[in-house]
Amino acid sequence: MDDLIATYYFRPGDGVTADFAAQAISEEQTTGTWTRLSTVNDHTAYVHAYDGEVMDIVSLGDGGYVTRIRYPYEIFEPGNIPQYLSVVAGNLFGLGKISAVRLLDMDLPDAFRAVHPGPKFGIEGVRKIVGTETSRRPHVGTIIKPKVGLNPKDTAAVAYEAAVGGVDLIKDDETLTDQRFCPLMDRLAAVMDALDKAEQETGHRVLYALNVTTGGDKIVEVGERAVKAGANMLMVDVLTAGFSAVQALAADPAITVPIHVHRTMHGALTRNPHHGIAMRPIAKLVRLCGGDQLHTGTVSGKMGGSAAEVLGDNAILTEPWGPVAPVFPVASGGLHPGKVHAELAALGTEIVLQAGGGIHGHPDGTRAGAAAMRQAVDAFLAGVSAEEYAKTHAELAKALAAWGTV
Amino acid sequence: MDDLIATYYFRPGDGVTADFAAQAISEEQTTGTWTRLSTVNDHTAYVHAYDGEVMDIVSLGDGGYVTRIRYPYEIFEPGNIPQYLSVVAGNLFGLGKISAVRLLDMDLPDAFRAVHPGPKFGIEGVRKIVGTETSRRPHVGTIIKPKVGLNPKDTAAVAYEAAVGGVDLIKDDETLTDQRFCPLMDRLAAVMDALDKAEQETGHRVLYALNVTTGGDKIVEVGERAVKAGANMLMVDVLTAGFSAVQALAADPAITVPIHVHRTMHGALTRNPHHGIAMRPIAKLVRLCGGDQLHTGTVSGKMGGSAAEVLGDNAILTEPWGPVAPVFPVASGGLHPGKVHAELAALGTEIVLQAGGGIHGHPDGTRAGAAAMRQAVDAFLAGVSAEEYAKTHAELAKALAAWGTV
Repeated sequence: MDDLIATYYFRPGDGVTADFAAQAISEEQTTGTWTRLSTVNDHTAYVHAYDGEVMDIVSLGDGGYVTRIRYPYEIFEPGNIPQYLSVVAGNLFGLGKISAVRLLDMDLPDAFRAVHPGPKFGIEGVRKIVGTETSRRPHVGTIIKPKVGLNPKDTAAVAYEAAVGGVDLIKDDETLTDQRFCPLMDRLAAVMDALDKAEQETGHRVLYALNVTTGGDKIVEVGERAVKAGANMLMVDVLTAGFSAVQALAADPAITVPIHVHRTMHGALTRNPHHGIAMRPIAKLVRLCGGDQLHTGTVSGKMGGSAAEVLGDNAILTEPWGPVAPVFPVASGGLHPGKVHAELAALGTEIVLQAGGGIHGHPDGTRAGAAAMRQAVDAFLAGVSAEEYAKTHAELAKALAAWGTV
Repeated sequence: MDDLIATYYFRPGDGVTADFAAQAISEEQTTGTWTRLSTVNDHTAYVHAYDGEVMDIVSLGDGGYVTRIRYPYEIFEPGNIPQYLSVVAGNLFGLGKISAVRLLDMDLPDAFRAVHPGPKFGIEGVRKIVGTETSRRPHVGTIIKPKVGLNPKDTAAVAYEAAVGGVDLIKDDETLTDQRFCPLMDRLAAVMDALDKAEQETGHRVLYALNVTTGGDKIVEVGERAVKAGANMLMVDVLTAGFSAVQALAADPAITVPIHVHRTMHGALTRNPHHGIAMRPIAKLVRLCGGDQLHTGTVSGKMGGSAAEVLGDNAILTEPWGPVAPVFPVASGGLHPGKVHAELAALGTEIVLQAGGGIHGHPDGTRAGAAAMRQAVDAFLAGVSAEEYAKTHAELAKALAAWGTV
């Protein structure tokens, strides 16, 4: 594809036709303004080459419409994600001629690939580090909980328990960065020591996604320092730090580790079905920017989300897209061993299942919680129900007794 | 104030009490998870010092509630705006226990001022450059239109006409950055030449807000290059580039010019009255980050917005806040000379009024359009209606004939 095609849901404002409303979006986001311009007549013979084009408008029969708008490639600055957003997701949200509008999807110009190589690791690269490229089993991760409050030593102690228990990934929570009660570099050193110790005991390499989220002007420096000090994965809150923060880390040859992307704040954009920005274009931009793992939601967790929606978002991460590597989808939020079967049945096994409370809240503690999650995954892969598998697996049995199944 | 207090509107989910829903926000955004944690018992005696606190809950009587939540200062990383956002505006938007939630406002810890000095110029600094620190008249600005499509030479020709016509500010549109059809540095050179020429003729210094919006990792470099090449104002799309992009520019001593902040994409967050993020906390963060001018909306333009809302947002920018300089509010979007009276009557005169189509769409072109806008401002300051003033001011008369008044 040469140009960018954005798909929007919209509801026209009072007394406005659907045609007029779609045209208003197309004009506001490209060359237009609300009146005839002397500047167009005086200065630009060629300017209409930069007009947006309303390709089609489909009525949903309930006052809502779906339209596709073509934005010419020339109006984009290749590599500048904030600029892409200002075109496809800028002023249109405030236009008086529409009462609601939601960016549902976008098809990106092929030429973007020249400046956006995508994930450096992707699913295969992450699996290779963990050693699951042959087994293809789902990964199990945990978030250190409580979100904030543990010092580096305690964080490392929890990480050690989770690693010995069998997780593949340990991550900081989205609000934990470099606070005084748990400085980033101290935490990194303590956790990596703990994971080295666990690896010596179990032979299993565990990733630790260190949350380096900070301003885009500082994140590369922080990321480089972390990698130099032994980090094996970096985490970024993409919507608070900006897509460019992920892009800058991925583009940096000194960042030799995968990037775990958290989407905190997405609900402010994604939750209203009639307005805002759907997860799909957000997922596409993360893949474009080079995120290696991305949270897309669960079908049974605390954060809502329908199976169809999550599957659609995961398809964006994993479908063939030229030479761009697929991103590892992450299901997280309210999961526990009793929900594993439902998640894997709905979402498939090319997934990272994360549990925070569902591991650290296990009656016998973090290690048993991690073991129970892995057992629940093993049960699914063996084609056995969790209840059946629990008969011979004590940790899983205790987890199911505590939280049940869905 | 020592801690951060965030104010939210929320609607509880089905079967959930307001108390429970507010508590769910407070817990999700601080230490909590959905279950009892072994890690809390095992490792942290002190962790409850980092709990959020629901201060109060007020029923609005229509199923909606307003709550204030106190977040302890210690859980923030001073200077890291993405981290602040992950606490006050992170996962809560997706919680199943609430059906809608909107961040209405926040009171910031005084200690943030040590790392956030605020605007380097603010209203006074910008007025000094333009020469209006004594007259206190409203500033008049224009956006070069069409948004995209003019080359540097044509952009400069439009800028010259606007400057000679009497504007105080010329700005790029939000989607124009460094595209091939109009490279940033070429455009800067051409426009500054045009403004120098205009200044020699009129004696009036005009600001040009060059849109340097790009990834946070690059924006300081681009901004420095622009200032070195003669830029007298930089523009940033704060929501697409990130608050840290503004912060990094403001913190850089080499950026010796004011920063004009555009809020494109805000409607995705701000438009739904029950969900998302209000403009008020966004305005507060821009002031904290050091923006010198910020778009907050109009009362009569194409982008909606009520007078009470815009006034409230402008108050955030201009109210006394320790040593932090006030930010110049910008009213923009669908304005023309016939709307000037309504805007100034509602919003006061410490304001920048911007017109794009309302200047370049004037029947006699950009220069006459700029003159008409200034005449409309002069009419208001003289206490005379635009219609009356138009009797002796031909440009204003033609504008009113074309577009009427509101």
